[in-house]
Amino acid sequence: MDIPDLETAREVLAAQPFSVLLDARLTAFGAGEAVLELDIRDELRQQNGFLHGGVLGYAADNALTFAAGTAAGAKIITSGFTIDYLRPADGRTLRAHARVLRAGRTRVVCRCDLSTLDARGASTLCAVAQGSVTVL
Amino acid sequence: MDIPDLETAREVLAAQPFSVLLDARLTAFGAGEAVLELDIRDELRQQNGFLHGGVLGYAADNALTFAAGTAAGAKIITSGFTIDYLRPADGRTLRAHARVLRAGRTRVVCRCDLSTLDARGASTLCAVAQGSVTVL
Amino acid sequence: MDIPDLETAREVLAAQPFSVLLDARLTAFGAGEAVLELDIRDELRQQNGFLHGGVLGYAADNALTFAAGTAAGAKIITSGFTIDYLRPADGRTLRAHARVLRAGRTRVVCRCDLSTLDARGASTLCAVAQGSVTVL
Amino acid sequence: MDIPDLETAREVLAAQPFSVLLDARLTAFGAGEAVLELDIRDELRQQNGFLHGGVLGYAADNALTFAAGTAAGAKIITSGFTIDYLRPADGRTLRAHARVLRAGRTRVVCRCDLSTLDARGASTLCAVAQGSVTVL
Repeated sequence: MDIPDLETAREVLAAQPFSVLLDARLTAFGAGEAVLELDIRDELRQQNGFLHGGVLGYAADNALTFAAGTAAGAKIITSGFTIDYLRPADGRTLRAHARVLRAGRTRVVCRCDLSTLDARGASTLCAVAQGSVTVL
Repeated sequence: MDIPDLETAREVLAAQPFSVLLDARLTAFGAGEAVLELDIRDELRQQNGFLHGGVLGYAADNALTFAAGTAAGAKIITSGFTIDYLRPADGRTLRAHARVLRAGRTRVVCRCDLSTLDARGASTLCAVAQGSVTVL
Repeated sequence: MDIPDLETAREVLAAQPFSVLLDARLTAFGAGEAVLELDIRDELRQQNGFLHGGVLGYAADNALTFAAGTAAGAKIITSGFTIDYLRPADGRTLRAHARVLRAGRTRVVCRCDLSTLDARGASTLCAVAQGSVTVL
Repeated sequence: MDIPDLETAREVLAAQPFSVLLDARLTAFGAGEAVLELDIRDELRQQNGFLHGGVLGYAADNALTFAAGTAAGAKIITSGFTIDYLRPADGRTLRAHARVLRAGRTRVVCRCDLSTLDARGASTLCAVAQGSVTVL
């Protein structure tokens, strides 16, 4: 099994047109953890001006999968995930921080904390997720 | 409680910049059900050419919430959802069909089937979701 | 792959001491579906007199796994599940009806409806679940 | 809102016949956390000799609910939860440790780590859960 490094993982992210559309970036990747961030811009909002839940779901899905990739390599497929929204999300940046809880031979289970950062870098936890990835 | 009709629900969708970015449309809304569709275009894909899981998550989240809105009106907030991916998703159109299972006074629980349609309209189930919405 | 029949599945259930403790029975098993039932007796209740959520969770977990077994045989292990409670559960019998949504080579995804039956056989949906099983 | 103390919480647990049947005990309760434990005895096993997933589901459900009770008091009802199994569970004791992530006015979201302890007290994480509770 070949574990990618941060540069390789960034190339995978850059090869996802949907991640390019959302302008997501990987800021950490390795040792069972991955951090995915994106700027909260207006076209990512819902009707009340908050970040759309679908953006949080995207970030959870992708961060969980990249975290699993730090343990299981690139030949993985996301099985599914659960997300609970905690607060309306707003601010400057969305940060999804995923951690591997258990990397088995055929399945990797991860958790993800989704926080928003304001202009001064203060962080607010706005959603939490748990999901699993199948190793091919 | 004021239950919106399809036209009003479409106005809510049009007021979500993220749904505009994804070019989603409501094709049914009422009687405990909502159908949300979007064209599968290249910028919604992942690195292997399939629809990104985050797009499926968005569609599940939004369809579940609109279905709940047919029972509980507009003053609702999505609590969270679970999605299981069944197959790599590809085709011409993504359709998310959500149904209310139970509309309580404070909480509405829904399921959602996510299918892709090919050029001839043949449907393939590619993900399933379950989620709940809090009535404010 | 060897798919068990109802009698063999009942032997598996009888070999689960926890299912014996709860006095669960399989009333259907085959063609992508399984039905697990148990009598609602006092020692299965919570502090308000309703069926304990843990009993519903048990029934969902086991029914999902048996349903997966109708498609994938006995060499499976439950990955996890999500349950949403819809109503306080009471009555004479708990029935968990699980169906396979997708049986892949390595993973089977199922849904489960949990209903209570009263003395006249009238059914009330009290919880819904979705889960997946890994094929070994 | 009246927050119970450990003694009061233990009385609630003792008033749950299903928790008495499983012989569960609360070993910590307060400040957004609850720990529920039970001895792993033979009648709680499945057909391969491991702890039945339904027992893990019960412990997750109940620990999550008690943790929420430390923040929201006794007038709560469990909405639902997700559990991912990480390893076959065996040992002397099952410990479910739940923590509040966000206590809102109408909804409390928690996570739960489920570990088994062997005869020397060594701990193995065997399942993880995430769930929410509605404040009545």
